[in-house]
Parts: sequence; C-alpha cells; structure tokens
Amino acid sequence: MPQISHRGAEMPSSPIRKLVPLANAAKREGVKVYHLNIGQPDLPTPQKGLDALKNIERKTLEYSPSEGHLSLRTKLVDYYKKFGINDIGPENIIITSGGSEAILFAFMACLNPGDEILMVEPGYANYISFAVTAGIKVRTVASYIEDGFALPPMEAFEEEITPRTRAILICNPSNPTGAVYSPEDLQKIKELVVKHDLYLIADEVYREFVYTDEPFVSAMTLGLPENVILVDSVSKRYSECGIRVGMLVTRNRLVYDTVMKYCQARLSPPLLGQIVADASIEGTEEYARECFDEYKARRDFFIKGLNSIPGVYSPMPHGAFYTVVSLPVADAEDFCRWCLTDFRLDGETIMMAPAAGFYRNPDLGNNQVRMAYVLKKEDLQRSLMLLRAALKAYNKRYTF
Amino acid sequence: MPQISHRGAEMPSSPIRKLVPLANAAKREGVKVYHLNIGQPDLPTPQKGLDALKNIERKTLEYSPSEGHLSLRTKLVDYYKKFGINDIGPENIIITSGGSEAILFAFMACLNPGDEILMVEPGYANYISFAVTAGIKVRTVASYIEDGFALPPMEAFEEEITPRTRAILICNPSNPTGAVYSPEDLQKIKELVVKHDLYLIADEVYREFVYTDEPFVSAMTLGLPENVILVDSVSKRYSECGIRVGMLVTRNRLVYDTVMKYCQARLSPPLLGQIVADASIEGTEEYARECFDEYKARRDFFIKGLNSIPGVYSPMPHGAFYTVVSLPVADAEDFCRWCLTDFRLDGETIMMAPAAGFYRNPDLGNNQVRMAYVLKKEDLQRSLMLLRAALKAYNKRYTF
Repeated sequence: MPQISHRGAEMPSSPIRKLVPLANAAKREGVKVYHLNIGQPDLPTPQKGLDALKNIERKTLEYSPSEGHLSLRTKLVDYYKKFGINDIGPENIIITSGGSEAILFAFMACLNPGDEILMVEPGYANYISFAVTAGIKVRTVASYIEDGFALPPMEAFEEEITPRTRAILICNPSNPTGAVYSPEDLQKIKELVVKHDLYLIADEVYREFVYTDEPFVSAMTLGLPENVILVDSVSKRYSECGIRVGMLVTRNRLVYDTVMKYCQARLSPPLLGQIVADASIEGTEEYARECFDEYKARRDFFIKGLNSIPGVYSPMPHGAFYTVVSLPVADAEDFCRWCLTDFRLDGETIMMAPAAGFYRNPDLGNNQVRMAYVLKKEDLQRSLMLLRAALKAYNKRYTF
Repeated sequence: MPQISHRGAEMPSSPIRKLVPLANAAKREGVKVYHLNIGQPDLPTPQKGLDALKNIERKTLEYSPSEGHLSLRTKLVDYYKKFGINDIGPENIIITSGGSEAILFAFMACLNPGDEILMVEPGYANYISFAVTAGIKVRTVASYIEDGFALPPMEAFEEEITPRTRAILICNPSNPTGAVYSPEDLQKIKELVVKHDLYLIADEVYREFVYTDEPFVSAMTLGLPENVILVDSVSKRYSECGIRVGMLVTRNRLVYDTVMKYCQARLSPPLLGQIVADASIEGTEEYARECFDEYKARRDFFIKGLNSIPGVYSPMPHGAFYTVVSLPVADAEDFCRWCLTDFRLDGETIMMAPAAGFYRNPDLGNNQVRMAYVLKKEDLQRSLMLLRAALKAYNKRYTF
C-alpha cells in the first residue's frame, strides 16, 4: 500500500470545519446546532444576484476566461475607487475561486519552498494550510487578547525576519480577531515592507465591515505598486460564500503574469458565480448599509452578552464579524467537542471553532475559541444562553 | 522590487490558452476565430441543468460541505455503477472545483516535493503545470503518432522508474490524443502498479466518448482499492465546463482523509455548479446518446478532412474529442501564432494548440498541433478550408 505524502500528513485540519462530523452526528440525533464556528452569514444574497441566475439565457455553460469576465473586472475597478484604490484597471484584476485560491496563487508566484512569510497570530487558520501546501515556512508575531489583538510592535516583526523572509501577510480587518489596523499601523507596515523589500499580501475581504470612525486604509493605497498583492472576495460582503468568487489585484505586472499561469492551468473560475457577483456589485449601496447596520447591532449585542458570562472575556472587535473569546476552561477544543457530543439544553447546542488552530505557538490560545456573529439576534441570544449553561455543566463535571 | 518565485518562473504557460491574447487581438480587428484549440463543446448543457438554476429557491448562496453535497455524491454512486464501478459510496467521493483541483489535490496528498510521477507523452499539458505547482518531477514515456499514440510498452515505463517514483497517471480516453486503452493495456498497467506499489491516478473524464466496440475499462475496476485515485468531471459529458465541478474518487481512506484537509482549507466547491450537475446527472441517457452520436460524426468527418490536406496526418482517435495532428511545417507554434496574427481568409482564421506543450521531450511534437472537434460540422468544414489555405500561404511565404 503506497504511503501518503509527508506534506499531506502535515496539513493541519481546519479548526473551523474539523468538528463538522461531530456536529453532523448531533444533527442526526435531532439536536439543533447553532453554528458560531463559521463565517456563513444568514443574511440574504442581494436579490439582483439571485435574479441573474433566473435570467440566464445561455444554452451552454462554457469556460470563462482564465482571468475572469471583463465585465466583472471592470465593475470591480469602480468598486475599488470607493475605497481610494485608483490607478488600476481590469488588467490588474484576476478572478479566482474564492479568496482561498487567490492566497494560494500569490504564495506560489511569490515564494519558493522554504521561503518564509510573516503573519500575525492568531490568524486565519487556512493561511497556514495554504503555506503548507506551498511548502512555505510561516513565522508568526503574536497579538494578545488583553490588547484587543492590536498590531504587534514592529520590533516583534523585525525579530522574525531572516534572509529567507519574502513576504508579510496581513488580514485587515482581521479574521479571527476583528482587529482593524489604523492609518499609522499601515504606515509602519509600509516602512517594514520597503526596508526589507517584501511582498505585502493584504487580505481585505471584510473592508465593508469596519465599525470605527477612522477611515479604512487599504494596502493598495500605500504607494507600493510592486509589493502589494490584494486578496479579495465577494463571499462575505454579499453573503454569497458558496459561489466561490474571489480576486487577486496587483499592479506588479510580473506577479500578475505569473499568477495567470496558475490560473490557466486550472482553466477558469466559476462561471455562474461570476454572473451572480457581477449582478451583486452594482446598485447595492442600500443592501451594504443594511448588512453593516445588522452586523454592528449583532456585534454590540453579542460581545456584551459574552462578557456577562462569568469567566468569559471578549475584546470589542472593530471590524469583520468574528471575535476571539477566552473561556474559563483549560482546553477549549475539548470543550467545543463536548458541546457537540455531550451537551444538550432542550435539544440544542452550539458549535465553536477552537482558537488554537489560529495560532502557531502551541502555548497560546488554548482557552480561546473563535466565534462568528453571523446569526440573527434571537439565535445569538439563544447561543449565549447555551454557552453559559454549557460552561457551567462542563466545569461542574470536572470539579466534583 | 521583490522577485517572483523560481517555481512561478518555471510554470509553463498553457499551450491551450497562451495564444489567447493573439486571438483576442484578431477578434478586436473583427476577425472571426474558429476555436480548435480548446475542448469547449458547442453542444447545449442539459435543459434540466439550466432549469435547476431558474428554480433555485435559496435566499442565501451559502458554503457547501467541503466534500460537496451528499445528494450529488449519492447520484454519482449510481452513475459509476453503469461503468462497472461498484462497492463505493458517497463517502468515497469528493467534489472538487473541476477535475483540475482533483489532480492537484491528488498530487499534494500522495507525492512529496521531488517525488516522481510517470505519464505518457503527449499528455494533457496542465498535468505538468500541476506537477510544477506541487514540486513533483514528471517522467514521461513517449507514444508516437505513427502508432496512433498506442500505450507504450511496459519496458519503456520500467526504464523511467526510480526509487522516487510514487505514481503513474493515465488519461483514458486520452486528451490530447484520443487513444483508448484496452482491457489488456489496463492489465499491464495494473501489474506495473502492483510490482512497484504505485498510486494509479486515472483521469477518465472522457469515458462517455469511446467510439470503439471494446468495453471501456475503468481503473476503478482493477481491484486495487489502495492504489487507485479516479479523477473525474462533469464538464465535458454535460457540456458545462464553466460550472467547475469535478470529483476525486478513491477507496483509500487515508488518501481521502488527506485530500479532505486540502478541501477544508479552500472551504467548499462551487455551490451553483453542484446544483446544475445534480440536475444534469439523472435521466440524461438520451442526451448522452445524442452527444455521443454527434461527436462520432464530427470525428469521422474531421479526421477524414484533415488527412485530405497535403502533408497533414491525423491518426483516428478512438475516444475523447481531440486529435494530435502533424502538419507540414517545422515549427507548429510559429504557424499557430501566424494564423492568429497574419492569416485571414474572408475575415476568418483558426486557432490551434501547439502540441509541443503536451510533450516534455523538446524533440517531439514540434510539427504537431492538438485540435478539438467540438464545433458543429459547418464550422469544422470551414476550419478545414482555413487550415488548407493557411498552410499553403504559410509555406509559400517561406519558400520563395
């Protein structure tokens, strides 16, 4: 029997999805599971996007260009202008199968196996999976719950820089912490990037969800045309995660052309998703405002509720729709599993993502979970009640 | 300015798509381009698949499970039974973003960087791109146009086997040659696989298009549950290439679980494509028969026409809808470019894929092109006329 690859063995399981079999088992028993583990919004997709599917006149669902449809890329140019991203055209944009593919292709095009990339931890867990896929070494700089997961000082980044460091990846606003980097933070990152001639890969898929009064600063506005690669996605802003439409944007022509070779190999991004995204992107200012207001209200309600549970602490996230929460347990993963396998209150339970999977340092985050506040208020309220009861029962179980 | 990666520089450009900018330039001049370069069928997608889009009731286009919808995987189990593939269940099937992703994930899960894989050349060009992506070394065993691209003798495979060889990849029926491997061929491959304990990655996306009377033998029926990984796609059989729905099928539980980690990292395959595929797969026997008859008629017409052009030779392909053709030119890529940039007949020209990109050996295939007979008969007829005129004009240009 042939062996699987070492790299395959080393691939981490997704902390967001690895407990899915336990959740499925609970559901088969008839248990209702509240999904706080995944950023799958319950808000509706824009009606224009849904209508576009009903109005498809094509008789053949053919390949699209490897870089995506020109129409969608042209609309994105206008969309980005609203965020101060100018001087780009459709020829700077590549449509990908979700932001996920954009990240993998950026890694492949910019870094060799053994090269190093800097990230903040806790960070989006799948970055590490894509780094393992690409044979890249991840070096992390820790941010801390007690500081609200603020950007670590540049000295901490400098300490992790080696001759193999080729890139820094930021997620702004941050999944999983909800941290939003200020204009000053971006300037510091810019200086670091220039000093060490790094690529700056900026994942800004949550840019529409910034709840502070400070203006959001895109890495694309820093004046680093050769260094910056923007990763984006329509998944979250139009509540259409399933269509798998992301994008990679760069002014660096050589990076663009190299990424295009990876795109040509996989032929094309999803046609139907592009049709939905194309229809979703225009004239949805009111939709965007409603989503923003809804998430902000959910955030205010949910974070307050979390902090009212004894031993639970969540900083106030300033963006995105996640928060990393410390719990009064030693092993948050064990608690998450137990909620799915053992805990039920009136036939219901909650699913959370253990935060350890968002850290590289095994000493950090073991008592933390990531939660997404993408459910409607009644469901968040019920989830808070379930969390409170589950913690009480779980801790009681270990103390007699 | 940071440098791109060596592996990115080494990524081959797709021979199928790299001339697209030249074709686009011609189209902007108002030239009509007949696309023989790409397997994009002009046949309609099954109406049931198109109707499924119009009938979507969902309000939110959410993520699907990382392994794909259970409904689609269950229908595939029945579909495979028609080809003698038994003893598998939905738990052996993973839905991917096209067959492309299935190949990449199989490579990642089964081979380490530096490991070697055996393929027949000419072979599907993007296999090499995925191998470069995965850091795998490709060793090729040549098949020849004068033998109708028959399976090379096992001795030739044995010569390429080293201590790093971990897998053999076959494409049956073959893209680009249309070769179909006989039951005896499959037995020989089985013996090789067993002898060296290799993975057998079998790309069988064209199984519906076998024009011989011999029964098609799937690698999944060879009785090698731990070795065989089937790569599949609905793209070609339902003429829905754009929906990006492929699949990976294996009875090897460890391979399945490892591939699933890659799947979880990229979250989910396209939701909308799965809805279309799910509706396309059932009750489309008549559709399949019509497609089969149409391709067979196109093949008979097109191959005869090719061989009637002076200096042009195409063997008779037994499956798929491609053929590799030798032309009376020294450099087929130059000829392909010239057709797009210089040659016009009544405002029309043809686009072909230079076959050199389907070979690893730089001495092979330089006078060959790959053509897909996926256009309707009138268009194929016109393409043949254009090819005849283009060859005449091109060779005249070089001989005075």
